[in-house]
Amino acid sequence: MSTSSSLIDKAVDQLSKFPGIGKKSALRMALHLLKRPEGDTLDLSQALLSLRTEIKFCKQCFNLSDAELCNICNSPSKDESLVCVVRDFQDVIAIENTGHYSGHYHVLGGLISPVDGIGPRDIKIPELLSRASDGTIKEVIVALSSTLEGDTTEYYLAKKLRELGIKVSTLSKGISVGGELEYADEMTLARSIRNRINLDK
Amino acid sequence: MSTSSSLIDKAVDQLSKFPGIGKKSALRMALHLLKRPEGDTLDLSQALLSLRTEIKFCKQCFNLSDAELCNICNSPSKDESLVCVVRDFQDVIAIENTGHYSGHYHVLGGLISPVDGIGPRDIKIPELLSRASDGTIKEVIVALSSTLEGDTTEYYLAKKLRELGIKVSTLSKGISVGGELEYADEMTLARSIRNRINLDK
Repeated sequence: MSTSSSLIDKAVDQLSKFPGIGKKSALRMALHLLKRPEGDTLDLSQALLSLRTEIKFCKQCFNLSDAELCNICNSPSKDESLVCVVRDFQDVIAIENTGHYSGHYHVLGGLISPVDGIGPRDIKIPELLSRASDGTIKEVIVALSSTLEGDTTEYYLAKKLRELGIKVSTLSKGISVGGELEYADEMTLARSIRNRINLDK
Repeated sequence: MSTSSSLIDKAVDQLSKFPGIGKKSALRMALHLLKRPEGDTLDLSQALLSLRTEIKFCKQCFNLSDAELCNICNSPSKDESLVCVVRDFQDVIAIENTGHYSGHYHVLGGLISPVDGIGPRDIKIPELLSRASDGTIKEVIVALSSTLEGDTTEYYLAKKLRELGIKVSTLSKGISVGGELEYADEMTLARSIRNRINLDK
């Protein structure tokens, strides 16, 4: 697709680099900017540039942050004795949005994957272990995806953290809340039977 | 949805102003920029700013253009005796993409709509009529949507252009190519029966 304007073509090319944005959506986005005041495009460009150039990694948890320490590590209302280990920044958002967790985080930035040559020292595991050795952290929740890499990383972390005398837990696996039983995959269903919860207590 | 970084929040706010982009997609887009080199964000911002500040309307056909005259009006390979009247810039792209039209265009920028107080002088109709009176244009194809406003504008243009001795045609209406008959709406089907094409000739 090519339009009669190279300015539009260039904007469409750039916008269609976003994941999930095709040429048609990119054109709709470009035309939307043309219909809005010039200030809107200025604000958008500025926000994207600031994001890209000013963002930092929190020096404690490696979450994306505006300052040296992220809002969560900096917040007095968060429980610093509880740390949730996640893979990515998106996972922090997902867990924060549940509104049911009030501890700190540690963002690994990847998972152990021998096939891809990623060992414990290639992700933020040494930083977690050093953080865990000063006695502040009492429990670590390992919240990684239930894949080969996630399970490997979880196993490694559990071993190392237990050596430091820290309680380690993991997310429970089972059928989705509100999900139909018949649509759950066999592995998940098997796991939710094995880890069944006693209703007597 | 709010993240631990106001830089990300601002970028998400700006990106989610695009039509069809929700907060989740906007976040995915913002994180995509963070994973790419800084130059990519710079290129994107620059392309959007250039688009918004440098774009012009072609002084002949009112198509969006980089220069005084758009690529189509400027091209010697396009037939200047044939003009296709469309509502918007997008319609030009749609028709160009068929690869079956090699004339010029005239972008009205709207349709006659008495209900909304839009008369012939509020859109680029006077400019079309003045363009049509110098004798270059032999035929005008009115390519507007088949709505009350589209039909009103078509009727008005046909009357005015015929007075200038110009041949006026409109897009044929009927069932879609590759479309199932049973899914065509009644108005369209009725129109395609009335305008049936004789296969004898």
